[in-house]
Amino acid sequence: MTRNTLLLDRSTVEAYAEPAAVVDAVEQAFAAAADGDAIQPAKSYVELPQYNGDFRSMPAYLDAGEWDAAGVKWVNVHPDNPADHDLPTVMGTMLYADPETGVPLAILDGTALTMARTGAAAAVATKYLAREDASSLGLVGAGAQSYSQLEAIATVRAIDEVVVADQDDERVAAFLERYDGRFDVREGDVADAVASDVVSTVTPVREPIVDRAAVGEHTHVNAIGADAPGKHELADDLLTAATIVIDDHEQCTHSGEINVPYAEGVLTDADIHAELGDVVVGDAPGRTDETGITVFDSTGLAIQDLAAAHVVYEHALEGEEGRDVDLYGLA
Amino acid sequence: MTRNTLLLDRSTVEAYAEPAAVVDAVEQAFAAAADGDAIQPAKSYVELPQYNGDFRSMPAYLDAGEWDAAGVKWVNVHPDNPADHDLPTVMGTMLYADPETGVPLAILDGTALTMARTGAAAAVATKYLAREDASSLGLVGAGAQSYSQLEAIATVRAIDEVVVADQDDERVAAFLERYDGRFDVREGDVADAVASDVVSTVTPVREPIVDRAAVGEHTHVNAIGADAPGKHELADDLLTAATIVIDDHEQCTHSGEINVPYAEGVLTDADIHAELGDVVVGDAPGRTDETGITVFDSTGLAIQDLAAAHVVYEHALEGEEGRDVDLYGLA
Repeated sequence: MTRNTLLLDRSTVEAYAEPAAVVDAVEQAFAAAADGDAIQPAKSYVELPQYNGDFRSMPAYLDAGEWDAAGVKWVNVHPDNPADHDLPTVMGTMLYADPETGVPLAILDGTALTMARTGAAAAVATKYLAREDASSLGLVGAGAQSYSQLEAIATVRAIDEVVVADQDDERVAAFLERYDGRFDVREGDVADAVASDVVSTVTPVREPIVDRAAVGEHTHVNAIGADAPGKHELADDLLTAATIVIDDHEQCTHSGEINVPYAEGVLTDADIHAELGDVVVGDAPGRTDETGITVFDSTGLAIQDLAAAHVVYEHALEGEEGRDVDLYGLA
Repeated sequence: MTRNTLLLDRSTVEAYAEPAAVVDAVEQAFAAAADGDAIQPAKSYVELPQYNGDFRSMPAYLDAGEWDAAGVKWVNVHPDNPADHDLPTVMGTMLYADPETGVPLAILDGTALTMARTGAAAAVATKYLAREDASSLGLVGAGAQSYSQLEAIATVRAIDEVVVADQDDERVAAFLERYDGRFDVREGDVADAVASDVVSTVTPVREPIVDRAAVGEHTHVNAIGADAPGKHELADDLLTAATIVIDDHEQCTHSGEINVPYAEGVLTDADIHAELGDVVVGDAPGRTDETGITVFDSTGLAIQDLAAAHVVYEHALEGEEGRDVDLYGLA
C-alpha cells in the first residue's frame, strides 16, 4: 500500500510515455469504454470570456481488466497566451489516484500526457483502419503533435517513408533533423503528404486544406487538428466519400473534424460508421478489402489521459523516477 | 508573471489558512456567487460501488472584485478506508490557477483546505445569523472539524465559553487540552452544548440528536455534519421552528441537513429563508430582534475551496513557503 504521491514533471512524462505501451493502454481504454467498463462524465467547462480563455475538467475511471485507474485532467485553453504572455495556449495537470482507496498516486504534467495520448488514439485508429501493408505516413502540420503521431503510428505499422508538410520552414527543418536516419523522411506539400498510405492532419485551420482528389483510394486519415466549432481540415467531398470513425459522438459533432459539415447537414449520423471503441471490440468492422478511404475524427477523451497516466505512473515507479511528496500528511 | 507552481502540503495549508482571512475570503465568495460573479458547475461524480467509494470534481471561478481565482478540487470519499486500509475516508487535492493565463499557481492538499473552508462558511453564517452579543459556542462532535468551527467562529463573535460534547472521551480530552487557557472550555452532554448562543453540529449521524426543546430561543445552529442522503443531526421540530439558511439549494435538498425532511415533505421551499450569499449581500435579511432560532445548512461549495486556496496561496507566497516546482516546463 503506497502512501506517497509522485510528482511527474514534463520531461519525466515525456521520458516514460513509451509509445507502444501508451498505444496499448489507450486501445484497452477504448475497449473498456465500448464494453461499459469506463466512467467518463461530460467535460465540465469554466468559461472566462473576459480573458478569452476557459478551464476544462475531465474526470474518468476505467477498468481494463488487469488494471484499473481513476483520475482527472484539468486544462486551460487561453489562445492569447503565446502573443500576450509568452506562455502556451494550453497547460494541463493530471491527478491520478488509486480507485480502491482514493489515495493520490501521482500528479503529472498534463501537457506532455495530452501529446502522448493523442498520438496513441491515432495509432489505435490506424491499427484497425489502415491497410495492413501501409508503409508511408503523411503529416500535414509539423508542430509538436506531428512528432507524437509518428512515434505512435510507427508502433502499429511498419512505417518507412514519412512526408511532412508545413508552411513554417523552421518547423519542417526541426522535424527532418529529428527523424533523419530513423525514417526515410522528406518535406512535401500537402498533396505529397496526403498521397501516403496513412495521413495525420494536425493543423488549426478553419478552411479545409485536404480534398478528395489528393487522397489515395485506400488511405486512412487521422483528423486531429479540429478542436473547436468552426474548425475542420478535410473538405466535404473527402468526408462524404470516406468511412468515418469517431472517438465520441457528442464531442465530434460539437467540435471535432465533422462539426462543420454535421452542423450544415452535409453529414448526418447515417454517415458515421462507428465509434473507435466499437471497432476495437469488434462490434463494428474495421478495414476490409472493400474499404476505401477511412477517416478517424479525434477529439480526445478523458480515458485516453487516464490510460497514458497509468503507463507513465507504472513506468516511473519501476524507474524510481519522479519526486516523492507527502502532500497529504499520510506518510 | 510567475511561472512557478507552489506545492503546498497539509502542514503548510494548515499554517497559512489563517482563520480570519479565510472567513473574509469565503464571505466574499458567497457575495460573488449571489452577485453572479462566480462560476460553479455542478459537482461531477465518478461512482465506484465496487470499492464503496467515489471521486468528486469541483471546478470553480470567482471574481471578488479585488481578486479573482480559478481552480478545481478533486476529492474521494471511501468510507471503508479507516477500517480496511488505515487511511482517511476523504483525501483531496486542489489545483489553483491564474484565471487570466491558466498558469497553474499551486497544488494544495485539499483535506486541510476543506477543513478551513467549512469552518469559514459556518463563521460567515454566524456573522449574519447569530446574536451580536453571542459569547458561548456549543460543539456537538469533537472531531477535526470542531477545531475549525471554533477557530473560525471566534473571529466573528467574542466567544468566551465553549462546551464540547462527544461520546469519545479521548476526542473530548484532546479538544480540551488544545483550547484550555485560550477559552473557558468544558465537556458537556449534547443538551449542555446546544444551550449555547451559537451551536455547530459536526457528527455523521442518521438519527437526529438535537431537538427543539434543548435549544435556546435565539440560538444560531450551524448544521455541518450531514453530507449524504439520509443523514441529519437536527430533529424536525427544531428545523420547522427555525429560520433556515442554506448554502446551495440543490446540494442541501439532496444531501444536506434538510435532505430527509425535504424528501418527506416535512420541509418545502417555502420553509427555506434564503441562501447564505443572499443574506451576505443584503438581498435577504439576517438576524433581527424578532428572529428566533436560525439554522445554517452547510454542504460545502467549490467557491469556498477556491477562496481558501486564494488565502493560503497568497500567504504562502509572502512567507516564501511551499516547494517550488517546474511541473510544466515553463521556467
